[in-house]
Amino acid sequence: MTRFVTTRRVEFGDTDMAGIMHFSNFFRFMEVAETAFLRSRNLTVSWNEDGVHHGFPRVSVACDFKQPVRFEDLIEIEVMIEKIGRKSLSYRFDFRRGETEIATGRLTSVYCRSTTHGTMESLEIPPAMRSQLEA
Amino acid sequence: MTRFVTTRRVEFGDTDMAGIMHFSNFFRFMEVAETAFLRSRNLTVSWNEDGVHHGFPRVSVACDFKQPVRFEDLIEIEVMIEKIGRKSLSYRFDFRRGETEIATGRLTSVYCRSTTHGTMESLEIPPAMRSQLEA
Amino acid sequence: MTRFVTTRRVEFGDTDMAGIMHFSNFFRFMEVAETAFLRSRNLTVSWNEDGVHHGFPRVSVACDFKQPVRFEDLIEIEVMIEKIGRKSLSYRFDFRRGETEIATGRLTSVYCRSTTHGTMESLEIPPAMRSQLEA
Amino acid sequence: MTRFVTTRRVEFGDTDMAGIMHFSNFFRFMEVAETAFLRSRNLTVSWNEDGVHHGFPRVSVACDFKQPVRFEDLIEIEVMIEKIGRKSLSYRFDFRRGETEIATGRLTSVYCRSTTHGTMESLEIPPAMRSQLEA
Repeated sequence: MTRFVTTRRVEFGDTDMAGIMHFSNFFRFMEVAETAFLRSRNLTVSWNEDGVHHGFPRVSVACDFKQPVRFEDLIEIEVMIEKIGRKSLSYRFDFRRGETEIATGRLTSVYCRSTTHGTMESLEIPPAMRSQLEA
Repeated sequence: MTRFVTTRRVEFGDTDMAGIMHFSNFFRFMEVAETAFLRSRNLTVSWNEDGVHHGFPRVSVACDFKQPVRFEDLIEIEVMIEKIGRKSLSYRFDFRRGETEIATGRLTSVYCRSTTHGTMESLEIPPAMRSQLEA
Repeated sequence: MTRFVTTRRVEFGDTDMAGIMHFSNFFRFMEVAETAFLRSRNLTVSWNEDGVHHGFPRVSVACDFKQPVRFEDLIEIEVMIEKIGRKSLSYRFDFRRGETEIATGRLTSVYCRSTTHGTMESLEIPPAMRSQLEA
Repeated sequence: MTRFVTTRRVEFGDTDMAGIMHFSNFFRFMEVAETAFLRSRNLTVSWNEDGVHHGFPRVSVACDFKQPVRFEDLIEIEVMIEKIGRKSLSYRFDFRRGETEIATGRLTSVYCRSTTHGTMESLEIPPAMRSQLEA
């Protein structure tokens, strides 16, 4: 798999009164990295196919914080797929600022479509999508 | 019209590195007050009717800030309808902390439904909805 | 330890285009529950003592999602302290909507103060604070 | 004054259940554009000078929405200074997606420093800063 890295700068509105980025925003950064990764493989996290909503809702997420980040810091986020299951996708995200390790995130999503009852139904990841993810 | 006031406490995640609530969150507070106001009149901001999405998308919003607010401050938000137009609704929001005037917000929304082309179409506010709003 | 439960309603701005609450907002809900829990014990997450900033920055957070939640859903959040370490605090959060289990969150924070160099230094949780937490 | 334009892509977490970007995020986009504009002139929105916090808190903001924007849309934001007052700064922001006009925002901030009492005090914009802004 090709290495995939994206960057994002900490915005003023990302900070909190402790003067550092609010921890919940690491998940927003993960999502931006996930979306950019999928886009680079001609995939996305949420779309309509023949009028039916498909997507990758998250079932489990986590983040360990090693160093705080501050306004205007430029953060590098490396996206790695740890596992492509039958229906699920597990990512790892390494956050760095220059040489400094900032945080490590994990996210597991499940390939789903909406049913006519408004609930979600998990689907097997089709072979074509699997190849795009493994590219 | 009955006076409508709701309260919301400033959360840690609402603050920014200047130690005060980030200005964009005043719009989140306005929306919470708008929603609570509509709920008190058996209305809502976004719903489905016979499979068609209806709602009150915003066309214009503004806020003037007089005093900063901080973590744990309890904010009182008074909701006033300034005008019910043929298709639109204009609100004013007065923010107070105790006796202190904090901010004044304004929001104009338009009653709309989604078309089959994925765009929105404005609708006349029906008499029944108008009566509920004026209650 | 007394059982501690707080509630929060899903706001319009908490939702995303999939029609459910965006996963990152579960961490905002956890923080609100954590803050309310600490307030009920006369504690807080961020404060100044003799001009020095003290607080409980997060070192590790996680959330497992079982059911999506939607606009206007009223969510019950139960806060449990899983462990009070020498310097750290580990919480578990159970999210429910009525009888339905929604999600389980975990959060570990470390008691810290800011140093004069702008970094953070971990501190032992003093006995008085420990008693308040265990109340 | 040199024309200043920046771009930002609508993120999944920026959308709401109506399938479009939540209106409050236009203010986050404005702030990102304001910050990028100031950075291009070697200025920033919030900084410490000899241990005293300086910044540009907002006193008035507004936005008129013409067209909704959706996930993955690439938005161009043009930043224009409408007025540099004695102590205040008024910006206008034009949002476009390709040729389509999306929204117009306005933001007025005041140059301030924190006092030792924890309140803010407005200051005259010094000539050097004025020249950088007018560059």
